[in-house]
This record gives sequence, structure tokens and C-alpha cells, in this order.
Amino acid sequence: MIAEQTLTEQYYRVRLHSEAICRGLETEDYVVQPVADVSPPKWHLGHTTWFWETFVLKPNVPGYRIFHDDFSYVFNSYYETVGKRVLRTDRGNLSRPTVAGVYAYRAYVDEQMSRFLDTAELSPDLHALILLGLNHEQQHQELLITDIKYILGHNPLLPAIEMPFQEHQSQLPSPDAVLAEGIYTIGYHSPDSQTGGSFYFDNEVGSHKVYLNKTTLNGNLVTNEAYLAFVESGGYQNFRHWLSDGWAWVKANDIQAPLYWHRIDGAWWQYTLDGLRPVDLNAPVCHVSHYEADAYARWTGQRLPTELEWEAAAPQLNWGARWEWTNSAYLPYPGFVTAEGAVGEYNGKFMSGQMVLRGASVATPEGHSRATYRNFFQPDKRWQYTGIRVVKN
Amino acid sequence: MIAEQTLTEQYYRVRLHSEAICRGLETEDYVVQPVADVSPPKWHLGHTTWFWETFVLKPNVPGYRIFHDDFSYVFNSYYETVGKRVLRTDRGNLSRPTVAGVYAYRAYVDEQMSRFLDTAELSPDLHALILLGLNHEQQHQELLITDIKYILGHNPLLPAIEMPFQEHQSQLPSPDAVLAEGIYTIGYHSPDSQTGGSFYFDNEVGSHKVYLNKTTLNGNLVTNEAYLAFVESGGYQNFRHWLSDGWAWVKANDIQAPLYWHRIDGAWWQYTLDGLRPVDLNAPVCHVSHYEADAYARWTGQRLPTELEWEAAAPQLNWGARWEWTNSAYLPYPGFVTAEGAVGEYNGKFMSGQMVLRGASVATPEGHSRATYRNFFQPDKRWQYTGIRVVKN
Amino acid sequence: MIAEQTLTEQYYRVRLHSEAICRGLETEDYVVQPVADVSPPKWHLGHTTWFWETFVLKPNVPGYRIFHDDFSYVFNSYYETVGKRVLRTDRGNLSRPTVAGVYAYRAYVDEQMSRFLDTAELSPDLHALILLGLNHEQQHQELLITDIKYILGHNPLLPAIEMPFQEHQSQLPSPDAVLAEGIYTIGYHSPDSQTGGSFYFDNEVGSHKVYLNKTTLNGNLVTNEAYLAFVESGGYQNFRHWLSDGWAWVKANDIQAPLYWHRIDGAWWQYTLDGLRPVDLNAPVCHVSHYEADAYARWTGQRLPTELEWEAAAPQLNWGARWEWTNSAYLPYPGFVTAEGAVGEYNGKFMSGQMVLRGASVATPEGHSRATYRNFFQPDKRWQYTGIRVVKN
Amino acid sequence: MIAEQTLTEQYYRVRLHSEAICRGLETEDYVVQPVADVSPPKWHLGHTTWFWETFVLKPNVPGYRIFHDDFSYVFNSYYETVGKRVLRTDRGNLSRPTVAGVYAYRAYVDEQMSRFLDTAELSPDLHALILLGLNHEQQHQELLITDIKYILGHNPLLPAIEMPFQEHQSQLPSPDAVLAEGIYTIGYHSPDSQTGGSFYFDNEVGSHKVYLNKTTLNGNLVTNEAYLAFVESGGYQNFRHWLSDGWAWVKANDIQAPLYWHRIDGAWWQYTLDGLRPVDLNAPVCHVSHYEADAYARWTGQRLPTELEWEAAAPQLNWGARWEWTNSAYLPYPGFVTAEGAVGEYNGKFMSGQMVLRGASVATPEGHSRATYRNFFQPDKRWQYTGIRVVKN
Repeated sequence: MIAEQTLTEQYYRVRLHSEAICRGLETEDYVVQPVADVSPPKWHLGHTTWFWETFVLKPNVPGYRIFHDDFSYVFNSYYETVGKRVLRTDRGNLSRPTVAGVYAYRAYVDEQMSRFLDTAELSPDLHALILLGLNHEQQHQELLITDIKYILGHNPLLPAIEMPFQEHQSQLPSPDAVLAEGIYTIGYHSPDSQTGGSFYFDNEVGSHKVYLNKTTLNGNLVTNEAYLAFVESGGYQNFRHWLSDGWAWVKANDIQAPLYWHRIDGAWWQYTLDGLRPVDLNAPVCHVSHYEADAYARWTGQRLPTELEWEAAAPQLNWGARWEWTNSAYLPYPGFVTAEGAVGEYNGKFMSGQMVLRGASVATPEGHSRATYRNFFQPDKRWQYTGIRVVKN
Repeated sequence: MIAEQTLTEQYYRVRLHSEAICRGLETEDYVVQPVADVSPPKWHLGHTTWFWETFVLKPNVPGYRIFHDDFSYVFNSYYETVGKRVLRTDRGNLSRPTVAGVYAYRAYVDEQMSRFLDTAELSPDLHALILLGLNHEQQHQELLITDIKYILGHNPLLPAIEMPFQEHQSQLPSPDAVLAEGIYTIGYHSPDSQTGGSFYFDNEVGSHKVYLNKTTLNGNLVTNEAYLAFVESGGYQNFRHWLSDGWAWVKANDIQAPLYWHRIDGAWWQYTLDGLRPVDLNAPVCHVSHYEADAYARWTGQRLPTELEWEAAAPQLNWGARWEWTNSAYLPYPGFVTAEGAVGEYNGKFMSGQMVLRGASVATPEGHSRATYRNFFQPDKRWQYTGIRVVKN
Repeated sequence: MIAEQTLTEQYYRVRLHSEAICRGLETEDYVVQPVADVSPPKWHLGHTTWFWETFVLKPNVPGYRIFHDDFSYVFNSYYETVGKRVLRTDRGNLSRPTVAGVYAYRAYVDEQMSRFLDTAELSPDLHALILLGLNHEQQHQELLITDIKYILGHNPLLPAIEMPFQEHQSQLPSPDAVLAEGIYTIGYHSPDSQTGGSFYFDNEVGSHKVYLNKTTLNGNLVTNEAYLAFVESGGYQNFRHWLSDGWAWVKANDIQAPLYWHRIDGAWWQYTLDGLRPVDLNAPVCHVSHYEADAYARWTGQRLPTELEWEAAAPQLNWGARWEWTNSAYLPYPGFVTAEGAVGEYNGKFMSGQMVLRGASVATPEGHSRATYRNFFQPDKRWQYTGIRVVKN
Repeated sequence: MIAEQTLTEQYYRVRLHSEAICRGLETEDYVVQPVADVSPPKWHLGHTTWFWETFVLKPNVPGYRIFHDDFSYVFNSYYETVGKRVLRTDRGNLSRPTVAGVYAYRAYVDEQMSRFLDTAELSPDLHALILLGLNHEQQHQELLITDIKYILGHNPLLPAIEMPFQEHQSQLPSPDAVLAEGIYTIGYHSPDSQTGGSFYFDNEVGSHKVYLNKTTLNGNLVTNEAYLAFVESGGYQNFRHWLSDGWAWVKANDIQAPLYWHRIDGAWWQYTLDGLRPVDLNAPVCHVSHYEADAYARWTGQRLPTELEWEAAAPQLNWGARWEWTNSAYLPYPGFVTAEGAVGEYNGKFMSGQMVLRGASVATPEGHSRATYRNFFQPDKRWQYTGIRVVKN
């Protein structure tokens, strides 16, 4: 049971971490949106703040005055509930509100939240909502990092930036994980009430049995060295290794290597948060799409694990360096029900066209990972810290 | 064990059925391609013939003379193995070869095949290849029907056409199918050799155990009447019922009802092979996408079955009128291995971005359906004879 | 003054020429539309017939029964006046009405027209309208030829076809045309009434004075040999020769040579109505866009003539083999007024974004050319019989 | 004859004006690019500076050290001469160089230029180049203003901004300008050397004779009140008023009124540099495309002037409030020759697909307008201060 006192502390720790991630940014870095997937950092800072204002303060603090009428329009990602507006616009076109304005918004909401958390009797529902808000902001923290990396890594000056985590981590050899054939229990096992255990998302709850065949998951992630062998063997030029959609993606986008890799005078370099560096052969490969992960695995005569295999093997695995692509589509667990209201829009509606990633990455906030966590992206996405673990066929 | 004699008979029966489907066409109907998904009928007739010439006759008949040098280019759907050509083109732009030319091609290949089947000692591999060719042509027969329906159903004259099957079928009430919780065996159980049993595709083989929860599948398909209630309730105007991708599809394409439905002076009509008819309220709804099937199910507070549930319940179901959308992504069974060579390209490379349909439809050729059959299409496709069966949550 | 008798004769001559152009087609060739600019031949045959039915027969023959209710929808190119329809469609998707149906439509309308022309007292306005209809059909005759060439020339079988004209014509050397500085009169000089002279379009009428500088137009069109030198010199690889829009067009479409040219084993071939032939070095270059004409002229240090220079020089020129790109935008002459009604939509609304071509081509119907004729196309179009004449700067 | 001393002064005056335009901006406003036509303000500031460094300092100052290696890539608009680069990017994605970095670049180049102008003996060519640079920067000053207006006017907060000019100007009634039929001389008359007169662009030089018909140009620009009548009469809903391309533009972009007009609760408002204001009925209409100008003129039974008529009438006109759309395509004057080198790319290559605008606007820098000036934009563009003057047909 987490005391209210602790919740305030948690609130501040999470809120400050969002700002710590941005500490090294120039004002200009907060504003741009190079591609649709990447949101401007100031949008993340505003959107996470809008969540607290809209779902916690407005309905629960009598007489609460919202910070600015237009901000709910600017920082709302739940577009469907927004009515018609005079102007349609994209996040990356918005020079206003300014970065200073967004930080003022954060300060205002933080003060209101602090007062509210100190004085309110939190019902279990409200407690759960606040935990959801904290986890929501943590999700945006990882996106903040990957979006900032994308913005700087696509700038011709390739600037370096300080971040509150260590991007580079070496991988110690780990033994393979062997699964015996049989029945396994999968999914987050929810105790009586949401407050009685750790936080979980609606998509991972519903503990249920599955039957798995005998399988061996590789104890180590695929390294840059191993992946480079695929690149150098002409892997991106031979359609036989690729899913049909994957090959179309390679062709349409002229893909030649993982994101952030550059071939310069015959050598391979990669953009990192420390700037351009030679590709580190021993590090686990990063920034690959599901298509690339699948093609690599086929090329080696192996395959990707399913998310069920991954979760069953998790206790044997040394995970956390890369989000690991599985070959499971993101679909509901048995008994999944979409919650009512705006929060109910959270996860269920994305259960189409996406693949599950399991584990966590170097950029995942502390306390935001667990073996039942289901991350998901479209199979062509690769600006997250994604990697590959193979299964012997 | 199927005797060689029988194989020749099977060959003729399948080949003639392709031509029977086209008997009502005007020459012009063979040529057009209104959208990328829909191939011109003459292409189907040529492509299935090209299969026999390329994979059976050419490698196995000494001194075989191919019918026309350019036909392998025109009728090849396996584009990746084709080298650079002077001209790139689309199927729907090709006025030549003419329809008469395609029928001459068929006649030539049929005669060669007949001679070959009569005289050759067929190895088990060759026997299996011929069965694959027959099933390949049967798959194209259903596409021939749905493509012809699309071509005529998008012509402002809305012409009727005779077909060798009954499109309209009434549905008798059937009891629900109840699955108890426990372990089920899924997938085609392959006997010792391919020739020792009935035909199967590589994607359905590999019998394996799965663990299923207690579930009840509706004994009847969703009717037009039930679906109309969804339409009239504003189902296509409310994002809450839809997957995120589905809602984007509805908006981008201004979808208002199933394909072939037209609202005329306040009443609903549907284009059928007999021309424009009032919507038959008792018939199972047809020509819906996975997005629509899913939205309908949500609207009723139910869901679509998984393909595993469907297969486990199949013995209790009265299936065969509509391909039934499941909520399973098209992914490999445990132990799936892609075969070598051009035939190996058959199914595996499409295991991304598609949803599984189970059962069969009124347009499926006789002998081409079984409970383990895995059909698959992208979730927005709806020109096939697709329908909806719901599961109580 | 043209007698009514003669008008009937003219009518039949023009109508039969449209059908003569199509004599060598297979049924399938009438149906396809490989790109938006190219209409299916059966559409041209139907649309020109629809013109007679809609503008002449319907308003002037009491009790006239139209051939088919839906044909005015299918064969109407004046889309703006058409109301909402159940089905939107493209010309190239329409397998029905069949080719036989279109010829039946022509026969019906021809019979009605014949009866009408034989018996009616034609007012001057009606006389003028019939002349417009004949010239309208003649314009479509040249499009029929170029569209058929496009359809066959983009078919991998590259079939030859008989046509009622000689595509290949050699060019005899002609002297340059010198214009002295001064005032010239440009435009069709309309006599008192439309029936009092030859036919003219609204865009060429309005004889007016212009002041021209001293200029010398080359007496000969640019040959394939001369143009080949531009190609071989890397003309398509060097942006300096190109207009900004032209260079973007070259890049976006990977343009390397005139339309229908193919480099095969190091030699240049061109598709002609007789099939694939080596490029004829002495013939005037054909099927080039305005961008290419302009780039070629720049590369030689010369320029294209304006349409005013061309018309002033026309008496000195040997023209008629190629439509000659000028460097004049298609804009109204002084005093141009758009006519009322549907016929008024004829030319004026296209006076934006197009360049003027002068002269005529080998495919222009007899009697359909004059020195004041203003043809026009967007600068990237090149499926017409277009060529280049340069002016010394 | 302008003394070197004066040139330094001119240089400073122009350079400071660019910065004065930006004085009211927030840092974030410098960065965004809402549409391709609109460049980020910091790009304009950097690009104009790059011009001085690249064309004046680098070739003429021995030992000149360029400010930053990558800036020539980032701020170069002459893309064709740039070789292959590791990263392709768009102007609006670039958060770096920062705004402070761009101002430091300006300061560095200004100091170098000041030293150079104080000490160098300027050849006539160099003198002409510096005049070109000043006029180039003045062109970007007007773009800076219109781009800033676009950025703020498409932000949902609709912020106001101070600018060093008065956007709003009332229009005093002026008499019509009557042109008699006859010969007029058009174009900038260049004296012996470029330094001997005022500056001119290559596209306006080449004084030549034209013959014009009798014409009367309206003495006043079309007002908002008059244009509003067109809007309210359903002008945007009736294809008959529009050029074919214009109507397609209206439909594809759902155009309903001039840019920056908003209908709010039944009243018309417009975004101005002072924020949202009711439409000023007496002011000349602004921010209309050529398509809209042409449609309005047709609706009144009048037409737009040609650029030749405009220039001939200029002495009688009260011009300078709006860039006035003419119905002349942007094409070369007789004798136009593209200059050699990078500067030669200046104007000639844009002579395709654009329409000429004459006059100047409230946003045009002082000293940057003359009666022979030829401005040009594609006919759909309307973010400049464009207006309408009609001619009686």
C-alpha cells in the first residue's frame, strides 16, 4: 500500500525527470517535428501537463481555473473528442505557446497538483488515475528521448546532447533460455484492487493460460557485429529474406542499414547522443524495424520469439537494454474490455496493425518496466531503442 | 490414394470451372482493372495457365516449346524474380494479349498438360506440385468471381451476370457453439506424405496444442438486418466503436455502409450478380472489412473469435456462407518453415499486416474448403464474400 | 457559302474518318486507359456522338428519343454540369457499354442526324453549331490516334497497327524565315458571319496588331539526329539547360529521352505505328515536351519562337509535320469573350498553365489546320506529335 | 553615380532592416515551416548572409575564413550545385543552427563586409554584384514579412506582432487610366553600364516596343466590400466563374474566401499583424490567388490587365498597396539571355508556370519598387500581399 505522502513524492520525481531529459536542449530544439511520428519536445511537456489539468484538477478541484483556454486544444492528443475549430494545424508548425510558456504551464499545474495531493482524500479511483497519469508521463519520457534523438540525429550538424541516462551499455554473455513444452500463465495477475499492487496497463491484465512448445531463446541480443554481417552480405538487396510488406518498405524508402547508421568512406558510423561515433561492434544492434528484425532472423535460419514465449522465458533472460521485437501482433488478451470514458481510449483502439515489443530499453524510466509490459509499434518504426533476440527454429 | 487417372480428371474439372465462371462476360469485361486489388479476368486466366507452363511443363517435358516469349512477363505475379524490363506496366493497361489469345494459351497448355498427365510417371513431388497448381487455380477462381463482381458492380450500368453458383443463400437458425476451457489441437495434421491425404497449404500444417478459455460462439452469422441497425444507429459516425486504424479508414474513404450497398431515396439496395436488389434482411451481411466486423462486434458488446477458437468450434458450426473475419493476425504456426524455391514464396512472405478469415463462402470452389484453412486479407479489404460471427465476451 | 447538301457530306466524311482510325483495333484496345491523359478509344467514339445527340438532336428534333439514359453520364466530359451520382468512376474502368454498344449508338445518331440534315432549315446558329461539332470530332480524331499509339506503345508486345495516314514523313530542307521588325496582324479575321468563311475556334478570333522585333526562324524542324546529340551530350543530366519546373519533371519521372524511345543494347529505337524501329535520324524529332523543347533550344544557344512570331512567319514556313511548341502561354487575345452556355466552356477555361503549339501534325485530319490555329497543352505533355523549331537569339 | 561610401551605408541600412522585421519574434517563431512555400525566418536571415559570404567575401577577400563549414549547406537555396550529402533534410526540421548562431553569423559577415567595402577598390562588376546582393536581401525582406504572417496567422493563438511598416492603408479614390491604341515602349531601359543607373533585374531589362489596343484600367483596386459581394453571391460554389485549374484548386483545398479570412458566427474576420480584426470593407482586398483574381474579374464581366497594359498605364496609376495580378505569364522579354554562373540561375529558370504581378505592396522595402519590376508567383499562391485591379473588357 502506497501512502498519499509517497504519491506526492512520486509525482515530483516523475515531473522533474521530464524536465531533466530536456535540460540540454536549445529553445529551438523544443519546436520542430521532422516527421509525423516525432512530436516536438515542448508538445510532450505540455501534453503530459494537460493530462493532469484535464483529468485530475478540473473535475476534482472546486473552482479550478484552467491555465489557458487554448491549451486543451493545442496539447490534446485525443483528437476525436475535439469539436470543429477554425484552424487545423500540425504540432510541428506551432511556434506558440513558447517554451517559456509551456514551463509556466507546468509550474502552475505542479503547484495546483501539490496542493491537491497534500490536502485531498484520494478515493481508490482517483489514486488509480494518478498512478495512470504518472505512467502516462513516463511513457512520454521515453518518447521525449527518442524524439530528441531523432531531431538532433537528422540535423546536419549532428549535435551531441547530455541526457540523464547512459545510452551505451555493453552486453555480458548470458546463457540461453530454454522453455519446456507445456502450460504457462501469462499476463499481469491483478490483486483485489489497483492500489493493492504495482501499476499495470489495461492491455496486460487478465492472467491466462497458454500452451507453448519446446523453445530456446538466445540469451543474448543480436550485436552490431552480427547485424553488420547481414548488411555486408547484401541482406538489404535480396527480397528472399523479407516479408512482402518489409521488402516494399525497403524499396520505397531506400533502406540500407539501421536508423542512424552512416557509411562514410567505407566505414560504418552511427549517430549517438554523444554525436557521430564508429559503430560499436559489441553493443546490441539498435533502431531496427520489425521488418529488419524478422529479415535478420530469417537470414540466420532462426525466428523472432512470440510475446508469450518471451514472457514465459523472462525470468531466465537478462533484459532491459533494448525493446525486443516479437512476432506477435498487438491484440487483446482473453477477457479484455475497453474501459469507459476518455481513459478507456488508452490502449484498446490501437490493437490493429502493430507488433508487440517486450522488455525495456536504456531509455525506459526507472520503475516503468516489468515482464508483463506490452509495448507496441507499427512494423516499420525504428526510432525507439529497438533490438533483436532470436529463437532457434 | 488418388490415382493418376483421377488427377487428369481433376485437372480438367478445375480448368473448365475457371472458364465457366467467365462464360457470361463480354470481351471488354476481361480487360479492366478498376482498383489495384482487382485483377482483370483475363489476367487470372493467363496467370493460372502460366503456372502450369512454368512449373510443370517447362521443367518436366523435354523439348517443351513455350507458347509465347512475353507471356511469362505479362502473367507472372512473382515480380521479384523478374529482371529489368524495357517497359513497366500495370495489369489493367494491357489490351494485348487479347482475350482470344489468352484462351488459345489455355488450350495449348491444356493439351500439353493432358498429354503429360497421361504419359508421365509422376514422382510424389510432382504429384504434390500438381495438387498445388489445382489449388492455386481454385484460389484464383474465387478471386475471379469477386473481381468480376467488383468490375460490374462499379459500372454505372450495374449489369447482371450468370455465374455457376448461387450467390443468395438463406440462413437457417443454428445453435451456439460452446467451448470448454482446456487444451485443443489446432492445424492440419499431415500424414506421412503429401499424397497420402488431402491437399493442404504450408500455412495450415503443423498440428499443435493451444490452451483456450471457455467461450461461446454465436451459431449464426450476423444478418443484414442486425447490421443495418448498426448503420442506422450512426455506427459509421461514432469513433468510439472503431479501432484507430479503422476510424482513419472510414474517414479517408467516406465509408457509410458495406460495399455494394446504396441508399436510394431512403431505402437500402445492394448490387448483386443479379443486378441491383433491395437489401435482403435475412441474409448474412456480406462485403464488410475487418474494421467493420470489429466495430459491429464492439457496438453489440461482443467481439470476434480468434482463429483458434473458430477452429476448435468448427465441428459445431454451420459454416461456408461467408469468409468469417477472426481477430487473429496472420502469423506462422509453431515450426513453420518457408519452402525453398519459387513455390516457397507462396504464403510465408504475406505474414505481416493481414488478418485471418476462416470458413469458406458461397463463391469458394467445391472441394477447396476445410476447417484448418487459413485465408487472409488486410483489415480494410471487403470485396471478398466476408461476413461476421460474434463471440459473447 | 456552304450548301446544306455539302454539310451532310461533310458530316459523313468526318464521322467515317473516326471509325477508319479504329479499324485496326482489337476490341480490348478500345477499353483501356493507361494514364489519365489518355482516354479509351471507345470513349472518344461515344463522346463525339454524345455531342451530336445532346447539342443538335435533343434541342432541335421534336420527340427525339435518346439512345440510352446513362450514356450522357458515361460520355460527358463536361463534368461540372453533372449532378451527384450514385457511382463515381473513371473512364478506364468501364467495360460497359461495350464496343458494339458504342457503334450501335453511333449508327443510331448518324441515322437521326442524316434525317435531320436532309430535312431541316438550318439557322445560321445551327449551321455554326454543326461546324463546331465537326471540328470537335476532328480534334478527337487526332487524340484517338495519339491515345491508341500510347496504349499500344506501352504494351509489352509493342503491336503494330494500320492507320489511315502515313506517320513517317521525310523532311526536305527549307530556307529560314526572316521577320523584319514592325507591326503584324495576328489572329483569325472573322468575316461578317460564321457561315461566311471557314470555321474557326473562339480562341483564335479577334484579329489584332502586334509589334515584333527582327527574328529568324529556322526553316527546318529539329531532327532526331540533332536531338540525339543533346541526349548523348548528357542533356538530361545537367540541370543548367532546364527550366526549374522542367528539371523537377525530369527528376521525378526519370526522363532520359523522348517518349517512345528505348535504348536497347546501346542503340536507340523508337516505337512507331509499325512497331519498334531504329530511330530515323533524318526525321523531325517527335513526342517531346515543352520542357524538352526549351532545354534543347537553350543547349544550342537558341530559343523557341513565340506564337506571334510563328504566325507572322507562317507564310514562309513549311509546316504541318509536327505540332511546334512555342514559348507563348495559352492566354486570351485582346477582346476575347467566353461564349454563353455549354459551348462557351469550350476553350476559355483552359487558359491557365498551358503552352501554345502551332502548325499541325501528320495525324491532324485534313481540313483541320490553318495558320491561326492555337493548340495548347501543359508543358510536360508529349504524347501528341510534338516537335521543335528554334529561333536564333 | 553612387560613391563607395554610399554603398556601405546602403549595405547597413538593408542589413538592419532584415533584423528590424524580426524584432517582435519569439525564438520559436524563427524555426517553424508550416508549408513548403514558407521558410523559417532564421533561414532567410542565414541565407541572405550566406549570399555575401559566398559571392563577395570568399572570392574577393584573400585568406577569408568562412564562419562555419556546414552553413553553406544549410543556407544554400541553389540546390542543384550541391553535391551528395549524408543527410537530406527540410528547412523546417532544423533546430540548429540556433537563432543566436544565425545572428552571430550575421555579425561576423557584416564586420567582414564593412572592412571590405571600406578598403576595396570595387570593379564595376563587383559593384553590380553588391547591388544585386542588396536587392536579393530586399526580396527576402518581403518574404520574411509574409512568412512570419503565415506562421503566426496559422497558429491557433493568432498572436499579434509589431512590424516596421503599416499593414493597413486606406485607399483614396483615383481616376481610371485610359490607354490609347498604339505602340508603347516596355521594359527597363539600361544605360551604358549597370552602375550608371538604378538597379534592375535581368528579367525586366531589354526595352522593347509593343502594340496595345485601347484599354481602360480601373483607377482603384478591388475593395474587400466588392470582393465580399462575390463571396456572398456564391462565387466559390459556381464553376462557371473559374479557370479549369482554378476550380480544381478551389475543390481540392476547399477554398471559401481569401487567405486569413474566417467566418465566425456569421461575420467575416481577417487575421492581421495586429491580430484578428473584422474585415475592413474599404481596404483593397488582399491575399488572393491569381485564380481568385481572375474569377472575380470574370464575375464582374471584366478582366485582369496584361503586364504590358499595366506598365504602359503605370504613370496614371496610384500603385504600391498590393501586388497586382496580371493576366500575363512570366516569360522572357525579347533578347533575354541567361547570365553565366550561379547568379545566372537567378530569374530565367523560373519562366514557366508562373504569372506576373506588377506594382508593389505595403510590405515592399523602400527603394525596391519601380514600374518595370516583374514579380511572379504560381497562380495558386496567395500568402503575399496580392490584390486585384480590373480592366473594362
